[in-house]
Amino acid sequence: VRLLLSCPDRPGLVAAVAEFLASRRLNITDVDQHSTESGRFYMRMVFDSPVGGAKSLGAEFAGTVAAAYEMRFRLTDSSQPARVVAMASKPVHCLRELLWRFDTGDLPGELAGVVSNHPDHREEVERLGVAYSHVVVDPESKAEAEERILRLIEGAAADLVVLARYMQVLSADFLERVGCPVINIHHSFLPSFAGAEPYRQAQERGVKLIGATAHYVTEDLDAGPIIEQDTARVSHRDELAGLVRLGEEVERSVLVRAVRSHLEDRVIVDGNRTVVL
Amino acid sequence: VRLLLSCPDRPGLVAAVAEFLASRRLNITDVDQHSTESGRFYMRMVFDSPVGGAKSLGAEFAGTVAAAYEMRFRLTDSSQPARVVAMASKPVHCLRELLWRFDTGDLPGELAGVVSNHPDHREEVERLGVAYSHVVVDPESKAEAEERILRLIEGAAADLVVLARYMQVLSADFLERVGCPVINIHHSFLPSFAGAEPYRQAQERGVKLIGATAHYVTEDLDAGPIIEQDTARVSHRDELAGLVRLGEEVERSVLVRAVRSHLEDRVIVDGNRTVVL
Amino acid sequence: VRLLLSCPDRPGLVAAVAEFLASRRLNITDVDQHSTESGRFYMRMVFDSPVGGAKSLGAEFAGTVAAAYEMRFRLTDSSQPARVVAMASKPVHCLRELLWRFDTGDLPGELAGVVSNHPDHREEVERLGVAYSHVVVDPESKAEAEERILRLIEGAAADLVVLARYMQVLSADFLERVGCPVINIHHSFLPSFAGAEPYRQAQERGVKLIGATAHYVTEDLDAGPIIEQDTARVSHRDELAGLVRLGEEVERSVLVRAVRSHLEDRVIVDGNRTVVL
Amino acid sequence: VRLLLSCPDRPGLVAAVAEFLASRRLNITDVDQHSTESGRFYMRMVFDSPVGGAKSLGAEFAGTVAAAYEMRFRLTDSSQPARVVAMASKPVHCLRELLWRFDTGDLPGELAGVVSNHPDHREEVERLGVAYSHVVVDPESKAEAEERILRLIEGAAADLVVLARYMQVLSADFLERVGCPVINIHHSFLPSFAGAEPYRQAQERGVKLIGATAHYVTEDLDAGPIIEQDTARVSHRDELAGLVRLGEEVERSVLVRAVRSHLEDRVIVDGNRTVVL
Repeated sequence: VRLLLSCPDRPGLVAAVAEFLASRRLNITDVDQHSTESGRFYMRMVFDSPVGGAKSLGAEFAGTVAAAYEMRFRLTDSSQPARVVAMASKPVHCLRELLWRFDTGDLPGELAGVVSNHPDHREEVERLGVAYSHVVVDPESKAEAEERILRLIEGAAADLVVLARYMQVLSADFLERVGCPVINIHHSFLPSFAGAEPYRQAQERGVKLIGATAHYVTEDLDAGPIIEQDTARVSHRDELAGLVRLGEEVERSVLVRAVRSHLEDRVIVDGNRTVVL
Repeated sequence: VRLLLSCPDRPGLVAAVAEFLASRRLNITDVDQHSTESGRFYMRMVFDSPVGGAKSLGAEFAGTVAAAYEMRFRLTDSSQPARVVAMASKPVHCLRELLWRFDTGDLPGELAGVVSNHPDHREEVERLGVAYSHVVVDPESKAEAEERILRLIEGAAADLVVLARYMQVLSADFLERVGCPVINIHHSFLPSFAGAEPYRQAQERGVKLIGATAHYVTEDLDAGPIIEQDTARVSHRDELAGLVRLGEEVERSVLVRAVRSHLEDRVIVDGNRTVVL
Repeated sequence: VRLLLSCPDRPGLVAAVAEFLASRRLNITDVDQHSTESGRFYMRMVFDSPVGGAKSLGAEFAGTVAAAYEMRFRLTDSSQPARVVAMASKPVHCLRELLWRFDTGDLPGELAGVVSNHPDHREEVERLGVAYSHVVVDPESKAEAEERILRLIEGAAADLVVLARYMQVLSADFLERVGCPVINIHHSFLPSFAGAEPYRQAQERGVKLIGATAHYVTEDLDAGPIIEQDTARVSHRDELAGLVRLGEEVERSVLVRAVRSHLEDRVIVDGNRTVVL
Repeated sequence: VRLLLSCPDRPGLVAAVAEFLASRRLNITDVDQHSTESGRFYMRMVFDSPVGGAKSLGAEFAGTVAAAYEMRFRLTDSSQPARVVAMASKPVHCLRELLWRFDTGDLPGELAGVVSNHPDHREEVERLGVAYSHVVVDPESKAEAEERILRLIEGAAADLVVLARYMQVLSADFLERVGCPVINIHHSFLPSFAGAEPYRQAQERGVKLIGATAHYVTEDLDAGPIIEQDTARVSHRDELAGLVRLGEEVERSVLVRAVRSHLEDRVIVDGNRTVVL
């Protein structure tokens, strides 16, 4: 069981949680904790499964320790694999990386479905036993398309949606109703080159490194809390096609790391930033 | 002798230059060349010193090959060490790195003087036999201060000015009159976090890597052609002071690499980008 | 057409080659060249296709410039895609990366076949229209198995064999007869942890980075000329399984870069080292 | 106060320590903890200073929690700056980096003295108010020289000795008697290229990355527990001098990070490996 929490920093926080678990004879197997100069406390604890299940334990914790210390927390039963829906447009590299990683068990959780506004990836996805839904999105029918996607996500009982180079902007209404976190991979080192065609922007500015950024999606396009980033060196020899090729490798790697951190319950969002424990 | 040139791409460019040198019995020891998809050709050639000196060779080259192919070129006699003036404000890490690298001969060229708007670094600089000029810069007397700095740079016969964390904006007039390239180190991965306090901006945005950028200074603040960049990984454990500390290491390293590339005549500026051969 | 050559360093080498091409009205589009302190000269030139084809040009070059300067050279007609045979054992990540990259055209050349001592990857390989040959290798029948593999490689008219985590040692006889270069990916930062189970060795030694090395295969196991290497940071949190997972990403990336360099005719082997131009 | 401990993994460890501290009203400000698959538990805790001082607290802890759980632990009063003695031979880059970092307060602790078998660095060291001792070491007088160095280290009340490119092998007798940990920087990515002239070895092997390793010194030359490592990319353009220059930057950076981790009580040695919390 994984406990992820944040609260105002105060003396006795670690001891309070440790005692709560010790008194229930639950063994802590992992702790990571962080306090900021500005007085905020973050903690991730992993411990053995309780007899009564995570749910009743959560209720107890909420009524006692969490209430006393004004904690926001999430308790996850790690024996239940999280369900993930991936969304992708035409570029296939990020989707393929996810397919592979879930298929080999290298990413925890289960790929419950793929939604695309292109028909191209059907065979590759279905071959691995994953449902593929092709939803046409065009300006006139965008609202309808989003409706349909929301129903697909709901039907898949998704705990997480991953935009694996999905090139359509999701509406505020969609984000409000989706009911689970949405992770996006942006193909630049944000905040540089937000918006369209980041590799072209990078080439025009003449940067010496390109990057990729995985972040939670919020209404502010490309401005949500960053989970993971990385960069790769480019040179004048890499024309636009070279930047894209090098960038795709960074995108795949950054997206997988971000999804893993999320699925291992390591990411706490605080305002517009994340703490990855 | 080092020849650095750019021109419209055309058949026969390499052969034309190689024949020009071969007919004067000058041996080429290094070539690096690059052509872009947009039809621009760049080349760096290193070859033995001519009998009559680099100057007369340059004149001949200008009148023949360069004229025929519309080349812009620079011919540098590498036996003459370039003269460098460094400018720094209070933070000392970049200045210190330069002092050290020139002192040990690790950077080619000679540190001909240091100009600072702070008196603090005098002892450290003069101990190594380098002239230190403290020039007070305040809003009222900025024009006068720039006059004085221009005279110091002229007096030092500088081939290059390096802003090693010099925190004053130089006027357009200064840049027009300085008479040699000016390299600046900006403490962010440009174009992210241009302007003041980039580490604070980075912390507020919650980025997972910080960076530094060395670029030629133009009138557009923090927007000149980039020579070198690099990044370093940070985590939530690094509060502002941690970002600054990690960043300083990146700044030092990026600045030294950019200054070395410039002093080895590897950098061709083309519009707002550089080709580093 | 790509020309890759090495010879003793002497005045006039660049000019001699440039003139040879200019006199045939062949336009040079790329040059990279390197001379060592020990007096060896290496060059890669890319130029337009000659009328009579690369073959006759090669014969002319051999008889003139190459003979005069004691050059070893290779002339490749880049319009003919190279043919590659991949060999893999049970771990699939490197093979899969190659399959993708050739399938999308991201690697130049053609994947002409896959040979494996395991039956597992047949469906995945054949789905992409690539021939899959399962050749059982056991101690008693090793010689026969190698015979069969040699015939498969010959039948595929392979220009390159890539060992994409092929876990059987190839005999000296095999290497002598294979008739084309063989690239291997070793899952450590050689020369550290040569031999079996490098990740276990790395864990036992407590290194803080793990790596991967792509090299040409020679009779000396894990000691052939290195083409490409890279490392990734690990921590005490990464038990053996974590090292393997992180390492696999490095292996894929290093192998693709090495194969690309080879297929773009950038790699010159000199003794036990390579120059990658 | 910082508590660093290791013990066999068992239920209740975090709670036991947290309760010990909570019952003394000591607030925990930082926890990092790690359990291995092989059943070993490591923890670092930072907490407020006790009224009676760290010493008496340590005695209490030893008699209660530590005894009950078979813990090995170290309790450090972080308000007392650690005292460091640096040793260096002719190459100055690592020594200089340490001088800077202690001088600016960027490394915690105090540089209590420098010992060198060369006279060259005296002025630079003494200028910063640090004692410099030149101890000639030659084969005949090595035992005497080590005696003298041991007395200097003792006289400086050193908590840590740092070999900042000290090129003499220390005897087993010296290491036994020195009375504090000794950190060395080796100029290769160990275990590659142990022994003399690692950059030359690296050049001969034709590796594509060079590295540096900081480790605790044990009787086995270059085989002690590794604290930190890093690598940098090199190319065929970097002859031996280039490898050295690039390597020196990595050495400086790796050594500083290792010394910082040690001085912040983050490093637990376990057999021949370290856990850096």
